[in-house]
Amino acid sequence: MIAVVKQGSTHQQIESLLAWFHSRGLRTHVSEGDYQTIIGLIGDTTQVDIDLLEGLEIVESVKRISEPFKNANRKFHPEDTIVEIGELKIGGGHFQVIAGPCSVESPEQIKLVAQSVRASGATLLRGGAFKPRTSPYDFQGLRAEGIDLLLEAKAMTGMPIVSEIMNAAHLPMFEDVDVIQVGARSMQNFELLKELGRLDKPILLKRGFSNTLQELLMSAEYILSEGNQNVILCERGIRTFETYTRNTLDLSAVPVLREITHLPVIIDPSHAIGISRFVSPLALAAVACGADGLIVEVHNDPPNALCDGVQSLTPEQFRDLMGKITKIREVVTAL
Amino acid sequence: MIAVVKQGSTHQQIESLLAWFHSRGLRTHVSEGDYQTIIGLIGDTTQVDIDLLEGLEIVESVKRISEPFKNANRKFHPEDTIVEIGELKIGGGHFQVIAGPCSVESPEQIKLVAQSVRASGATLLRGGAFKPRTSPYDFQGLRAEGIDLLLEAKAMTGMPIVSEIMNAAHLPMFEDVDVIQVGARSMQNFELLKELGRLDKPILLKRGFSNTLQELLMSAEYILSEGNQNVILCERGIRTFETYTRNTLDLSAVPVLREITHLPVIIDPSHAIGISRFVSPLALAAVACGADGLIVEVHNDPPNALCDGVQSLTPEQFRDLMGKITKIREVVTAL
Amino acid sequence: MIAVVKQGSTHQQIESLLAWFHSRGLRTHVSEGDYQTIIGLIGDTTQVDIDLLEGLEIVESVKRISEPFKNANRKFHPEDTIVEIGELKIGGGHFQVIAGPCSVESPEQIKLVAQSVRASGATLLRGGAFKPRTSPYDFQGLRAEGIDLLLEAKAMTGMPIVSEIMNAAHLPMFEDVDVIQVGARSMQNFELLKELGRLDKPILLKRGFSNTLQELLMSAEYILSEGNQNVILCERGIRTFETYTRNTLDLSAVPVLREITHLPVIIDPSHAIGISRFVSPLALAAVACGADGLIVEVHNDPPNALCDGVQSLTPEQFRDLMGKITKIREVVTAL
Amino acid sequence: MIAVVKQGSTHQQIESLLAWFHSRGLRTHVSEGDYQTIIGLIGDTTQVDIDLLEGLEIVESVKRISEPFKNANRKFHPEDTIVEIGELKIGGGHFQVIAGPCSVESPEQIKLVAQSVRASGATLLRGGAFKPRTSPYDFQGLRAEGIDLLLEAKAMTGMPIVSEIMNAAHLPMFEDVDVIQVGARSMQNFELLKELGRLDKPILLKRGFSNTLQELLMSAEYILSEGNQNVILCERGIRTFETYTRNTLDLSAVPVLREITHLPVIIDPSHAIGISRFVSPLALAAVACGADGLIVEVHNDPPNALCDGVQSLTPEQFRDLMGKITKIREVVTAL
Repeated sequence: MIAVVKQGSTHQQIESLLAWFHSRGLRTHVSEGDYQTIIGLIGDTTQVDIDLLEGLEIVESVKRISEPFKNANRKFHPEDTIVEIGELKIGGGHFQVIAGPCSVESPEQIKLVAQSVRASGATLLRGGAFKPRTSPYDFQGLRAEGIDLLLEAKAMTGMPIVSEIMNAAHLPMFEDVDVIQVGARSMQNFELLKELGRLDKPILLKRGFSNTLQELLMSAEYILSEGNQNVILCERGIRTFETYTRNTLDLSAVPVLREITHLPVIIDPSHAIGISRFVSPLALAAVACGADGLIVEVHNDPPNALCDGVQSLTPEQFRDLMGKITKIREVVTAL
Repeated sequence: MIAVVKQGSTHQQIESLLAWFHSRGLRTHVSEGDYQTIIGLIGDTTQVDIDLLEGLEIVESVKRISEPFKNANRKFHPEDTIVEIGELKIGGGHFQVIAGPCSVESPEQIKLVAQSVRASGATLLRGGAFKPRTSPYDFQGLRAEGIDLLLEAKAMTGMPIVSEIMNAAHLPMFEDVDVIQVGARSMQNFELLKELGRLDKPILLKRGFSNTLQELLMSAEYILSEGNQNVILCERGIRTFETYTRNTLDLSAVPVLREITHLPVIIDPSHAIGISRFVSPLALAAVACGADGLIVEVHNDPPNALCDGVQSLTPEQFRDLMGKITKIREVVTAL
Repeated sequence: MIAVVKQGSTHQQIESLLAWFHSRGLRTHVSEGDYQTIIGLIGDTTQVDIDLLEGLEIVESVKRISEPFKNANRKFHPEDTIVEIGELKIGGGHFQVIAGPCSVESPEQIKLVAQSVRASGATLLRGGAFKPRTSPYDFQGLRAEGIDLLLEAKAMTGMPIVSEIMNAAHLPMFEDVDVIQVGARSMQNFELLKELGRLDKPILLKRGFSNTLQELLMSAEYILSEGNQNVILCERGIRTFETYTRNTLDLSAVPVLREITHLPVIIDPSHAIGISRFVSPLALAAVACGADGLIVEVHNDPPNALCDGVQSLTPEQFRDLMGKITKIREVVTAL
Repeated sequence: MIAVVKQGSTHQQIESLLAWFHSRGLRTHVSEGDYQTIIGLIGDTTQVDIDLLEGLEIVESVKRISEPFKNANRKFHPEDTIVEIGELKIGGGHFQVIAGPCSVESPEQIKLVAQSVRASGATLLRGGAFKPRTSPYDFQGLRAEGIDLLLEAKAMTGMPIVSEIMNAAHLPMFEDVDVIQVGARSMQNFELLKELGRLDKPILLKRGFSNTLQELLMSAEYILSEGNQNVILCERGIRTFETYTRNTLDLSAVPVLREITHLPVIIDPSHAIGISRFVSPLALAAVACGADGLIVEVHNDPPNALCDGVQSLTPEQFRDLMGKITKIREVVTAL
């Protein structure tokens, strides 16, 4: 961390500042330039509150040199984290496809979709029971009943299930859910993250649609620092000025995250693009650039889906996609 | 609402679609163009799930013509909403300034700041007890103790208090808080919004840093549609590509929101710009373009504030600002 | 095109508006709703100036239903455009890789890079002679001399050359350049686009870093409508709030553009990400999602490149990438 | 400037790097941390090409501490620049309002608007002769004839004129234009900027809709470094995710630019918001936060304007606005 001292600061002010750093266990290096003095801080700067430092009167600006995340940082954990979900593994070369409908709608629907995606090669089943919707007038999910239906589908197919939580008070209902998903709008619900950090269940943490990769890792850090090491990161599109697609899928997140963190990284092309006929090309692109998995929306009857039908693949389209994914994976893993 | 039908749809498909609309209580007008057929929908389209409609196979695209919000819509409530906080009023020509520290830190600090901002003319006291921080290693607020200290400051000064909630489970602690603030990161915490909609306490709803004005009003709609009509909207800066300031204050939100909604609109220049020496010019700009109020961070000792000291005014700077605000208000209200 | 009429407009005002549309050769359909009247416009609306229409007093808003571009629109030209560069073809199933240094620096450098990329399978040579640089103090390119050196490299290797133009006054120097590149910062230099539209040379049109896909196609329309049909589109990253990468590569542009336009679409991963070690994964992703080609920066000695060395591959890295591209192309074309 | 050296670099590599810096006239300070070595660079770093430096193999990242602009930097020119346009002054406490139509359309129109804005207190006349339009099918301006009509209006009213240039080849036509405007889309047309730098005429440089303040100052630097010191900066709205307004006016640009540069800063509320009824509140906000001037679109008959009628004020609205501006200026200058 670098602190730039304001022009015109006195020698005595700088000495006080140095003393302040030393009292926090940091070592310092001072460089005096023509127009400014720069103080390099050495030690564990993850504990330094950058806002506090910038508030000091003689400080012009502060720049982090090392990352503010620690548990999620590959520098301190060079090995890939492999998250285990029952007998399945994700990360460290293990690739999984999560598929299922946006919302659980009925016993028939979730079972039908579960069987079909399993037959095509998906290994985990997704389904929303609690749905964050921009409008209070839109379908909000079957809630507790939705979780029950997912558990029935799991019992029938043997597939572990993934579902989104919106409220820590709902945790008891998620006891038998295999992977708890934190949606994009909850990525900075820090109270929720802390609670999830106290479980030892895998957490699928989606990037907020306007959050940086560093903020994503800071949110992972909330979970990791409470003890839960089973975090799977998910890029699902970011908000930009482009209006043709719902969001802009940021595939550069894959190689960047794989370099700076040891956590597995998966891609959600369905929410990113929001239009089903563009989902498959982006899913293939995600595989080609090294993602550890995909989460894809599939619905038996997209035109009549209660939510996000527009971005769901039919079971046939999904089967076709899985065939292509397998071939691209072969090339990527052989490379 | 307009639905554009895909090229090549058959007459029979279009008839089915029309029947589907009629079954939902909507009237339709069909225009056949050279390259597409357009169906105009008339009736209460706030209840139509646009995602569902776009998922229908023969629909190419859907465009809303009328706003998807109803309770917050000035078309249906032409009069300004005036929110009452004890004897204070905001909206409909009533202007208030909320001031105080980012975080409550100690009994001395909050009382000292409260007395000084009151002396300068602020009418409500703000102070964070629960702090949403990007890093788990940064100061997270005094929590319950912070609320107690705010209540002490209220008892001493008579100022109503404003504090941020992060978790519906904390509601009992907010019983004596006069205005509950929903922070930018919680603007789409729909579970929380629904709970707040069941209170009859004023809610200060901040715009998420990447949310559109329409999304802000949809979140207000969550509160209003549950029964609570006391919503104050707050613009506090949006995330853009510019890196010089923390966020970009979107002052066009003031005249736009005043046209499309009847709810009061206030501005938070401190969080928007993030640098104390730029707060005053933006506060004056907010007053000049017609905001119903301001929320400003003031700290007795910004360099040693436990959070966001960098954007806090000193009591002296705040007193100076209040003098200028008064003069600009005189011009604006005389116009 | 849909025009929404303001509430409270009189019957007579609406009649005048309809007459105004009819005088412009458009047919109209009127739908009267509870809160507004909507006029559907039928006919060639690409010629309607939307700003002008929105300026009319009784018009509340205008929404385009059909695209404002015509020559670039796949609806009117369903077949893929295949651009020919000498004996090479791009588009319609033909895939090409353009490679070379960011800037032409010396005879030795350009020849060395040209020979090595050609040996690895690149079919066109890129090299900047005129360099748009944010700072006037940064290297601005060898200019005319750079073009001469590219021509020497072309003579030696037989590879057609691609170079960027910044000023229509430089056109005489580009007489022997095979493909003229319009850089991201010039995408809306409409005066330049018109001049290029009067040539019959292939134009590589890069998307501006903050331009929508529709604006990209409107800029293509400037060239096409002047007569030049040889336009290749290039996505090279857009500006977002993310700061880890230089820009955010928008790969959804590939399937979207392939649907709405008939022009070939290539990807520039080097400028998008700005960091050489992330270029290859994104290049593979671009191939997997169906791009018609790539443009990749390669430099014999990236650490000493005079510009953008940080994003250039070494010849060895490029050879390795080409091997992988070939395999992914095999999968994609077999699918 | 700070260069962070990659982990694992050898002592010898670091020595070579230091020698490389010294050969460029820079002094260095080395700080060795636990995980990285940091080199502080002291001297004139505006001449260091940051891309080149980041390309060096042992460099992990580079951070600028001081600004890359020099001539535009207030640190080196603490006094406000006052640009003179005939007898008018702008900057350093001098405030001017530029008004007129988006496009010059006819002799009657430009004269009528000129007389009316002059009567209301505007001191300069704007009018577009060359119009950058997204669509080739929209009105492109009267071009040379437009300039002639502006000159006639100038002769009649005595008001200096401001008009936009799109092509350096048009410079001879601008000989009698008092202030040459560089539009947002041309802000990084570096070839044009260099040519304008060789004139001694005032240049009104608009911020590109997706350019940072630093990029704006780097573009000013292109003009200043060629010798022309008469640059007026103009903020006119930036592109964000918000779709309600055309662009998002970034008023924080006013206090920020006034701190970091000595050049005058004016605001264009008309293009920023794009809707005439919101122009006045934002114009007042701009005055309240300290802008040195405004540029406002006024049209005698906005519904029939050939371009951007939707954002033009009528002469009556403008007269009303000028009255309010005068009162706000009185408050601001008295403060």
